[in-house]
Amino acid sequence: MSEKRPIITLTSDFGEADYFVGAMKGVILGINPAAEIVDLTHLIPAQDVYAAAFTLMCGYTAFPKNNTIHVVVVDPGVGTDRRPIMVMTDDYNFIGPDNGVFSYIYQREHVNRVVNFTTEHYFRQPVSNTFHGRDVFAPCAAYVSKLIDWRMMGEEVSDPVRFNTPMPVVVSEKQIRGSILHADRFGNLISNITSAELTEDLIRAGARVRIGTRQPVRVLTHFAEADQNELFAYFGSAGFLELAVPRQSAAKMVEGRRGIEVEVVVP
Amino acid sequence: MSEKRPIITLTSDFGEADYFVGAMKGVILGINPAAEIVDLTHLIPAQDVYAAAFTLMCGYTAFPKNNTIHVVVVDPGVGTDRRPIMVMTDDYNFIGPDNGVFSYIYQREHVNRVVNFTTEHYFRQPVSNTFHGRDVFAPCAAYVSKLIDWRMMGEEVSDPVRFNTPMPVVVSEKQIRGSILHADRFGNLISNITSAELTEDLIRAGARVRIGTRQPVRVLTHFAEADQNELFAYFGSAGFLELAVPRQSAAKMVEGRRGIEVEVVVP
Amino acid sequence: MSEKRPIITLTSDFGEADYFVGAMKGVILGINPAAEIVDLTHLIPAQDVYAAAFTLMCGYTAFPKNNTIHVVVVDPGVGTDRRPIMVMTDDYNFIGPDNGVFSYIYQREHVNRVVNFTTEHYFRQPVSNTFHGRDVFAPCAAYVSKLIDWRMMGEEVSDPVRFNTPMPVVVSEKQIRGSILHADRFGNLISNITSAELTEDLIRAGARVRIGTRQPVRVLTHFAEADQNELFAYFGSAGFLELAVPRQSAAKMVEGRRGIEVEVVVP
Repeated sequence: MSEKRPIITLTSDFGEADYFVGAMKGVILGINPAAEIVDLTHLIPAQDVYAAAFTLMCGYTAFPKNNTIHVVVVDPGVGTDRRPIMVMTDDYNFIGPDNGVFSYIYQREHVNRVVNFTTEHYFRQPVSNTFHGRDVFAPCAAYVSKLIDWRMMGEEVSDPVRFNTPMPVVVSEKQIRGSILHADRFGNLISNITSAELTEDLIRAGARVRIGTRQPVRVLTHFAEADQNELFAYFGSAGFLELAVPRQSAAKMVEGRRGIEVEVVVP
Repeated sequence: MSEKRPIITLTSDFGEADYFVGAMKGVILGINPAAEIVDLTHLIPAQDVYAAAFTLMCGYTAFPKNNTIHVVVVDPGVGTDRRPIMVMTDDYNFIGPDNGVFSYIYQREHVNRVVNFTTEHYFRQPVSNTFHGRDVFAPCAAYVSKLIDWRMMGEEVSDPVRFNTPMPVVVSEKQIRGSILHADRFGNLISNITSAELTEDLIRAGARVRIGTRQPVRVLTHFAEADQNELFAYFGSAGFLELAVPRQSAAKMVEGRRGIEVEVVVP
Repeated sequence: MSEKRPIITLTSDFGEADYFVGAMKGVILGINPAAEIVDLTHLIPAQDVYAAAFTLMCGYTAFPKNNTIHVVVVDPGVGTDRRPIMVMTDDYNFIGPDNGVFSYIYQREHVNRVVNFTTEHYFRQPVSNTFHGRDVFAPCAAYVSKLIDWRMMGEEVSDPVRFNTPMPVVVSEKQIRGSILHADRFGNLISNITSAELTEDLIRAGARVRIGTRQPVRVLTHFAEADQNELFAYFGSAGFLELAVPRQSAAKMVEGRRGIEVEVVVP
């Protein structure tokens, strides 16, 4: 942590109609009045750990390094013995339940250690069975932002939960195999293929993208270039190749969902 | 107020689609640039003073004492002669319309005084007929956060509006009578019974919860223990006994609503 | 800019379910940790530049002068060659795409200059084709909040895009002609007529408001005075004469929309 005002981001499935998010912020500010709190989103679909992991992956690098803590509370296991953890990387700390929500972080960042928060002194008492966002994750994030040593707060663990985060495979100069990571609320299908695999040269050479049993589709630069009802591919704002249809749901059109295979073919 | 950065929380039924909440924040920051503003929620159902009172009750204690002002603007009487007030308690100040929205506060906190803001010098001019959030409550909160003496801003009143906030009654060792305070947007029915009345000992002894003419239902620790279509009771994150049905609306199932009686019976 | 903590407001059509708004804030805080960021709204209807312009007009003056930058990202032309601009007025700076979203500002404020941001040094690299909110507008706003000279960041332009922003016309002592600026999400029709034209004297003299081929309707002080199903006029919180029907959509009732003529007649 630098001497800059520490930033704590919040991502959850709490929605915005209740006092939940506000209560987390109150707890944080009571412990560290200097914390700068930023909402990533609180509209993750209920208990959708995959969607939370994806959203975090898309957003976390926009924040300053060395003084940002990313807190994620999408926590179907709240009240069970799933562990509250902190993932400490070179550039950021991540705090949340040990349910796989940091799987993309394990893949992309240099992880120095994963800490299981066990010291109840740093929890808000009494700890409720249903709201660890307020009682565990918020106070722990606030104490970490005050530079409390992690050794005081818990113990290192070596087996955090992670789900499969497939990487795209460059099969040949004319073929790339990837898969869908996420279907967003508009039905756009976001793959794991980036411009590192599907280069501008390949696009200029006429690369097309196949999903399911459909004919391969065009790679466009902008939504505006697509025809009505046209399924097409483009690079979205998070840097991934996405499949979309203007004003329609690509997910519905091709029965696409997380895990489905995508293929780039070059003529 | 301490010397810490003052916190001002905002609760309203303004929604998030308009400029209303932003305008309140602009006014506050114009008067006190040091204020830390935190949204509790702006999605209170339109003009639902009871829901606002309940949400405030659930959330206010998460904030630091001595430097937090809670502002509530759910105000069906805006533009009439209902009074803009501040409730000053040992730990917090509360600012909003005098329409009962602070009823739970009167019950739970030691109230030192209730002030009617009358000094128009502290209002934003001209005061609109429809937006006292921006023109009255926001500037008054900002001035209070700057430690302006309440005697400059208005006069003490002794008759603030309050609605009935029933307390649970322990009828005998085997019977507790309570009532529903709030039906949330998922249809969970939140009662006024806490673990002070329904103790762990009583739960272990097989306590069950009756609502309406139904058979008494089980008290569970987690949602996950409930069967499909099962009406059950549990302690929610705000510390109250709630009635719920997995993925359904308990309010619809039992025609429950605010004021309905709930009974705990021990065999 | 004063020495106060700079304020940056954000208005967009990004919604609240994605990482977009959070990413903009992360970029801003990475460049200027002292920035105070305030959301106006992120629920502008998708690509509705008129609605964004109207919302900005209603909200911008609530913020302190001299240290507020208003950023608007409703940007159907993102990725094309539409210009990213800053409108510098006596009291505020406005940053966004050059698509007319600042039309009301040009009409109401003393504009000192309009700057086209061209210096890519101040953009976030690589600049995506679809997310200039994060890659262009957020960083430029952050640098402006650090008092970087506009001459370093771009060049003055003289032909910003603006749409027609009609002013009301006082035809005679007994007639005012205006038009509808905006239909809000409740179906209220907001005109360009203010109390400068429709004075209290005229209202006391029995002024009525005509829209379309309907009989002229009453001007009321509060919603509560209206009868069921009554179309009526009143001054809304933004200072404009609005047409409304209790619990119904005036826009539907009279087929009203932006641009429709409204007339005040005095008997």
